[in-house]
Amino acid sequence: MRATVMYGAGDVRIENVPDPSIIEPTDAIMRVVRASICGSDLWPYTSMAPSESGQSMGHEAIGVVEETGADVRAIKRGDVVVMPFAISDGTCEFCQEGLQTACVHVGFFGNNGTNGAQAEALRIPYADGTLYPLPVGEDDALLPSLLTLSDVMGTGHHAAVAAQVAPGHRVAVVGDGAVGLCGVIAAKRLGAEQIIVLGRHADRIALAREFGATDVVSERGEEAVERVKELTGGYGVHSVLECVGTGDSTLTAVEIARPGGAVGRVGVPQDEKTPGSEPAFYNNVSVSGGPAPVRAYIDELLPDVLEGRIEPGRVFDRTVDLDGVPDGYRAMNDREAIKVMVKP
Amino acid sequence: MRATVMYGAGDVRIENVPDPSIIEPTDAIMRVVRASICGSDLWPYTSMAPSESGQSMGHEAIGVVEETGADVRAIKRGDVVVMPFAISDGTCEFCQEGLQTACVHVGFFGNNGTNGAQAEALRIPYADGTLYPLPVGEDDALLPSLLTLSDVMGTGHHAAVAAQVAPGHRVAVVGDGAVGLCGVIAAKRLGAEQIIVLGRHADRIALAREFGATDVVSERGEEAVERVKELTGGYGVHSVLECVGTGDSTLTAVEIARPGGAVGRVGVPQDEKTPGSEPAFYNNVSVSGGPAPVRAYIDELLPDVLEGRIEPGRVFDRTVDLDGVPDGYRAMNDREAIKVMVKP
Repeated sequence: MRATVMYGAGDVRIENVPDPSIIEPTDAIMRVVRASICGSDLWPYTSMAPSESGQSMGHEAIGVVEETGADVRAIKRGDVVVMPFAISDGTCEFCQEGLQTACVHVGFFGNNGTNGAQAEALRIPYADGTLYPLPVGEDDALLPSLLTLSDVMGTGHHAAVAAQVAPGHRVAVVGDGAVGLCGVIAAKRLGAEQIIVLGRHADRIALAREFGATDVVSERGEEAVERVKELTGGYGVHSVLECVGTGDSTLTAVEIARPGGAVGRVGVPQDEKTPGSEPAFYNNVSVSGGPAPVRAYIDELLPDVLEGRIEPGRVFDRTVDLDGVPDGYRAMNDREAIKVMVKP
Repeated sequence: MRATVMYGAGDVRIENVPDPSIIEPTDAIMRVVRASICGSDLWPYTSMAPSESGQSMGHEAIGVVEETGADVRAIKRGDVVVMPFAISDGTCEFCQEGLQTACVHVGFFGNNGTNGAQAEALRIPYADGTLYPLPVGEDDALLPSLLTLSDVMGTGHHAAVAAQVAPGHRVAVVGDGAVGLCGVIAAKRLGAEQIIVLGRHADRIALAREFGATDVVSERGEEAVERVKELTGGYGVHSVLECVGTGDSTLTAVEIARPGGAVGRVGVPQDEKTPGSEPAFYNNVSVSGGPAPVRAYIDELLPDVLEGRIEPGRVFDRTVDLDGVPDGYRAMNDREAIKVMVKP
């Protein structure tokens, strides 16, 4: 079968690889119906050292179960399923607590004997714990929005939960990428009264406004902090969704939180230390977040997707087949596309 | 009257200063019945540059109201009161939310025309918002414990609240100073099942055990992290109370939290950036806390003090009069005393 392999920065290839097969009795084989390219895939796309063996890519997908191991109980052949980005056993204490990204058997697709999801099919370890069956067919019009439950919508929701968004809150979303846009949806869904998006790409800002953003701040650094304070009666916002991960964006996130506020960060941190220790401390601002347990959030988000109350699938503004994946990486990296869907 | 003034590192003097008087109609004059020396007073004691004007010292006290301004309503002459370490108006939105340390009129004793509380008396701005009247006389046996409500017990409680201590939780307290010891009391009071104290002073550890600590870790750094993991089934604790504030102690605090856990920090941060960004992120560990709104916590803590269920006053192991204050600083700085009470 065919799959996406990255061999170094900018070097994405579609190759023939062995078909996946059941190895453990808790495995399933999933045929990929839709996959996507994640903002986090762009980190290796811009920085990966050349590799002879390559890295199999893709961790967001919807698929159809084609085969199950002897111990798989909840998932069955023919199920249309969401494949959350993290493998989880569904039974350990962290899974029970709803933090599947800390599962004692956590794993990530493309490693440890699984290939990535930008492919025709893949092996799913701990299928019962990992996959989430959907009540739709594989040609459903809602597939793009359902696909976001595998990562980007769940991640935006996690940022909003970590940022303690609540009805009536003033909220800021740092970053206008696909996660930030889903953060806007999540903030509105949780009752935010004001949603300020910090970003500067016209197409993304336009979509953010459609999703519920009330204000836009295109400045950066100290100017952005001043602007947010002007928009919030001088004190800053209750909740900040940090959806970038750089030192500068994190410092801005801390500085625009009002005293007693909360920063929920889902941007993968690029530094060993978190900036803004002193403003966070003196203002009693909490900083939390991390890899989103998107598996846990599907129960809550799915009804809103199925009934059309939220449309996170609108973050996909380009669809490619497998042959189009390398150019899809380029388009996302050049900010020509917000997010690329893959239809193998 | 006589008051404590610091003129530089190690240079604490008792001097005659003008008697305080009402300046604003919202002021009160409070005669000091008990004051104390705070761990945070030791920062200038070890590092203050020589100053000709000096710094008036002391921000923890119990006193008797001697005079009130024309607009003071809730507080009256003769009231025995707790003086929380922060001045707060009691009416702004942050005070209403219970975050008095972010009051729009917040102030700290010893600055802006008030003298400190290691003195015979002082002027209290926003007396109605700042002071908390007590149902006891000025010779009550509970004065030491009531005095801790002005800072150290409320601060330990704040660490526990920020660390999300809940019944059945595994908790670690980083630091065995007076705040850490009160953190142990707070953790036990909130239902912690296991309380690991990280410290190495025999007298403080002994008191921590009496307050409810179940385990002691005297190692530091990576060894401390290993030891805490051994004591907690391999995953770390749900809640960490960071009561030191150095970079090393904060990194340890993050590293001993289990996935999904919380660090509540009340140790004044000594660095611009918070260490442990990556373990905090990848483990979804929240970091929060700051200057404790002790005024807000008195309602909750006072009944337990009055009925003897908690005895935070036991952190005082030395009492001095005003003349003994300079030696009290020395004794605390030399770790000869845990915490010094001042009886002017």
